[in-house]
Amino acid sequence: MEFDSTDSVRNSNPLSYLQTVTFGEPMPLEHGGVLPEITVAYETYGTLNERKDNAVLICHALSGDSHVAAHNDTDDPGWWQIMVGDGKPIDTNKYFVICPNVLGGCRGTTGPDTVNPQTGKRYGMAFPEITIGDIVETEGKLVDDLGISRLLAVIGGSLGGICTLEWAIRFPDRLASAVCLAAGPHLTSQSLAFDIVARNAILSDPHFCNGNYHEHGVVPADGLAIARMLGHITYLSRESMMKKFDADRNQGRKLDTKFETKFSVGSYLAYQGEKFVDRFDANSYLTISTAIDTFELGSSPEELKRKLRKIMCRFLILSFSTDWLFPPFLSKELTQALLAQNKAVNYCNIMSDGGHDAFLLPNEFLLYGNMIGAFLRRSTKEAGEGASLSGSPATDSRFDFTQILDLIPASASVLDLGCGGGGLLSRLKQRGNTQLAGLELNEVKILECIDKGIDVVQADINAGLKEFEDDQFDFVVLSKTLQTIRDVEFVLSEMVRVGTRCIVSFPNLGYHEYRRRLAEYGRAPRIASTLPGTKAAAAEWYNTDDVRFLTLADFEDFCAEKHIRIHYALPLDTKQHQRITEDPNTNADTVVMVISR
Amino acid sequence: MEFDSTDSVRNSNPLSYLQTVTFGEPMPLEHGGVLPEITVAYETYGTLNERKDNAVLICHALSGDSHVAAHNDTDDPGWWQIMVGDGKPIDTNKYFVICPNVLGGCRGTTGPDTVNPQTGKRYGMAFPEITIGDIVETEGKLVDDLGISRLLAVIGGSLGGICTLEWAIRFPDRLASAVCLAAGPHLTSQSLAFDIVARNAILSDPHFCNGNYHEHGVVPADGLAIARMLGHITYLSRESMMKKFDADRNQGRKLDTKFETKFSVGSYLAYQGEKFVDRFDANSYLTISTAIDTFELGSSPEELKRKLRKIMCRFLILSFSTDWLFPPFLSKELTQALLAQNKAVNYCNIMSDGGHDAFLLPNEFLLYGNMIGAFLRRSTKEAGEGASLSGSPATDSRFDFTQILDLIPASASVLDLGCGGGGLLSRLKQRGNTQLAGLELNEVKILECIDKGIDVVQADINAGLKEFEDDQFDFVVLSKTLQTIRDVEFVLSEMVRVGTRCIVSFPNLGYHEYRRRLAEYGRAPRIASTLPGTKAAAAEWYNTDDVRFLTLADFEDFCAEKHIRIHYALPLDTKQHQRITEDPNTNADTVVMVISR
Repeated sequence: MEFDSTDSVRNSNPLSYLQTVTFGEPMPLEHGGVLPEITVAYETYGTLNERKDNAVLICHALSGDSHVAAHNDTDDPGWWQIMVGDGKPIDTNKYFVICPNVLGGCRGTTGPDTVNPQTGKRYGMAFPEITIGDIVETEGKLVDDLGISRLLAVIGGSLGGICTLEWAIRFPDRLASAVCLAAGPHLTSQSLAFDIVARNAILSDPHFCNGNYHEHGVVPADGLAIARMLGHITYLSRESMMKKFDADRNQGRKLDTKFETKFSVGSYLAYQGEKFVDRFDANSYLTISTAIDTFELGSSPEELKRKLRKIMCRFLILSFSTDWLFPPFLSKELTQALLAQNKAVNYCNIMSDGGHDAFLLPNEFLLYGNMIGAFLRRSTKEAGEGASLSGSPATDSRFDFTQILDLIPASASVLDLGCGGGGLLSRLKQRGNTQLAGLELNEVKILECIDKGIDVVQADINAGLKEFEDDQFDFVVLSKTLQTIRDVEFVLSEMVRVGTRCIVSFPNLGYHEYRRRLAEYGRAPRIASTLPGTKAAAAEWYNTDDVRFLTLADFEDFCAEKHIRIHYALPLDTKQHQRITEDPNTNADTVVMVISR
Repeated sequence: MEFDSTDSVRNSNPLSYLQTVTFGEPMPLEHGGVLPEITVAYETYGTLNERKDNAVLICHALSGDSHVAAHNDTDDPGWWQIMVGDGKPIDTNKYFVICPNVLGGCRGTTGPDTVNPQTGKRYGMAFPEITIGDIVETEGKLVDDLGISRLLAVIGGSLGGICTLEWAIRFPDRLASAVCLAAGPHLTSQSLAFDIVARNAILSDPHFCNGNYHEHGVVPADGLAIARMLGHITYLSRESMMKKFDADRNQGRKLDTKFETKFSVGSYLAYQGEKFVDRFDANSYLTISTAIDTFELGSSPEELKRKLRKIMCRFLILSFSTDWLFPPFLSKELTQALLAQNKAVNYCNIMSDGGHDAFLLPNEFLLYGNMIGAFLRRSTKEAGEGASLSGSPATDSRFDFTQILDLIPASASVLDLGCGGGGLLSRLKQRGNTQLAGLELNEVKILECIDKGIDVVQADINAGLKEFEDDQFDFVVLSKTLQTIRDVEFVLSEMVRVGTRCIVSFPNLGYHEYRRRLAEYGRAPRIASTLPGTKAAAAEWYNTDDVRFLTLADFEDFCAEKHIRIHYALPLDTKQHQRITEDPNTNADTVVMVISR
């Protein structure tokens, strides 16, 4: 067990790089209070270009600060050192990075610990209640002050993630793209409950003195430490705690503390709790955690959609599988509300043991770091003059793709189910189609799509397409995937609901070679699947990805029974690159069908 | 939001039904302390029969007590009112129910709040550290005192569940059966961490006074309330909290409390926390929660197996899908360690939104209540003289079952994979086989097995059989299930590892009717699956449970390639109830194969 290795937030804030700006006019707050003046403390990295279109704003988490990375080799590392710097995903050679300390905090931006210019005393408990909107409003003032009218991107995780969401809603035309990690439209009641217990621990500490502890020369150290212990548990996952603490579970550490040190995890919590008291202010904790808890973009899908309606930027939303502070289903709700309104959105749930803190850890960095890097590069291209809109050139020459392309007009909107690495979609994009979206399950394929500049959302199509409205797309494509789907009836009914026209392609079990193999040799047909990533040689009866076996005639029967209209059938011999005209149920190895409800 | 509806533990303990017994001799404790005398307070229900073999011991949870149910119509309901009483699963007309208060508690059994006869003062912090073993030891004394040499069953959930485990290990010959709910061989580090923070809240309350708060006329009310708030969050699930609190999330309640009441969940926690202080003692909380935290049956599978080696009773282990205090994987580890040693064990993970408290709630009672009822009835039969060993008579006359029965000697041990409602196993049991176990995924089928007196463990055979030793069974059977398994290679390799002989049956795609349908009519064969619960009429290509299609010849090729030996092939025409001798790959609709590695 290491006490201090990958813990989320470090206490390093070298004042030498801290810049401040003070706004003298009174600032009205969302909940009715007013702050007579506002100071914003921040750090910057890299250089703002002449067009002022390379600025990236990073929003920190609850106990983080403006020191996101080291400014040079001798500087202390920052809390997102792996992400920000020379050649890193948020590349300080390319981007002008701004990281402000939040309003209400205790790192230089106005907060409860600040002296109120009107009274000459610290605000303490008199600091007014603030919202995420107020925090973002002050960040907007800073960005204005820096002469930047439109940010290339706003990026943040946890509290930083919900600030990113607020940015996209509050200032829709002031950012080109947004990266929201480990966050959601609101907390779950479970996460909210932990925040409440943490605040109760602070409020019931006798040294809290109704918030004016500084005047009494004390601090509510026990309460704040207990709050931090609770926080720490919610930042980790059950899995990461097992890895960290199970091996020497009963071996506590000798620590000078009043808290229990009996178990390894107990010593860890005591250490983290006490360390936190040295660097954080209890009133700031109450102020910011309450702002997080009252953030609400809508508890119903309808309300959420309404709140997100004005968003204009492109989104990358990332959740982490074991995050239980902001569980992945919240990010999915966000994604679905954006998708339903044809907003440009990319989403992936990164498989990780790291819990909420996973976005700060190196474990899955190859995936999520590269996704962020590729997403920013795309935003740069699309912001830059004369830059090509396309990513890597499409090279996939699958015969059935070529055939499908011919069936889709260049003006059509297209949803590709099981879009793989974006082969079909990038050809459509090159060809001129603009409104394109893909669903894909595989994380690596998703990264490929983002790298190609294709908007992609991680989803299991077996769960249906409930995020989409009826007839939302001109075309929905299911290419060589039908045979891998268990609940064919449900998925096809969802397709024809969402697409005005649908294109389905699948291998035809009626193909003469397959028939002969069973009839003459008494063996199960070995169907050469062209699914991306599947080796044809591996497609034996016991290890093929296919679970449904159908002939062209079976599919026609199915459509007749389920009242699905067949507009066009395109039987193919993919080996000969030919369309089949005679006896297609025997002569086609693959079929492309255009259907609708 | 209801404040007090289904909460786990009520404050009802009508002293009129409370009995006590005092043991005057000093009791040495596992961690070295000694208690000069022990009083055990308990309640009983029903009547002990003449043979004294109908006694059921119920172990309560952390904040529970001996009042498990009402004693009559005017009595207060108990904490397990749904489970215990006239005609209920733990039927007080049949069973003599004993429910003691735990050692270290504050409900009449000796604990920190008790006056130490040696000093004339309450123990307070001087109460020695106790273990789950010490708690069970005192319960053993009580059972002795009641003249019961062997309990029909010990039953408990949470703390009660780990006491049940300790009973089975400590007194292997003093109980016939054990029901362990929502528990495990140890806490996870995550759950342990919450207990530690809860204790820290009590210890750092200035009114704790080093445990001697009573002498100072105070109680550590804030700390104990915060501990209880935390506990409450861990007893619920994310899902149940959403249901309970999301609708009126921002509507706090007016409460006379020092704690935050801003949100509905905050008001609830404040209410629960303060209410708890009135009925529970802080030192008892520390004592019992520490005993739970130090309970450890082994962190490795080997250590766990060693600890469970002496167990002689039959087990029913139940976990609940959203329980995150004792997550289901812990119950699975217990089950696997028992299975590996051929102990009689039944296991099911009940799908539930109820979290840890699910075992107290009515939601899934039809399943888990009936499982407990059926399990106890079986134990009663097997304990009683002249009672039949079998449950409901087996009536399944599937032709392939009859054939499989003929292949298995009456002395053989048998593991049935995908055993359904226990059709094959109950026929084997009637026929005389004694060492039988089944794996099944479906909860309702599992209840059927328990009702038939067949030991069954919930498991997905796709995950393999890692809980079993090499050659643990004479026969492993996979009857009409092979075709529904995706990873055939893995599952078959596991089968032949665990069984000295294996019997596999599957439909033969080579059957002439199937061949003809594809070759002549160009349609996918419609295979009449005889899987339990599958309607043959539904077995179209798009909705069959089957995902693998193979001929007898394919299977022979597969075995040759994978070095699996075929001892015997039994091709069947199940419609004609005939064995096939000529051209089986064409004439058999079903095949039974005996194989080994």
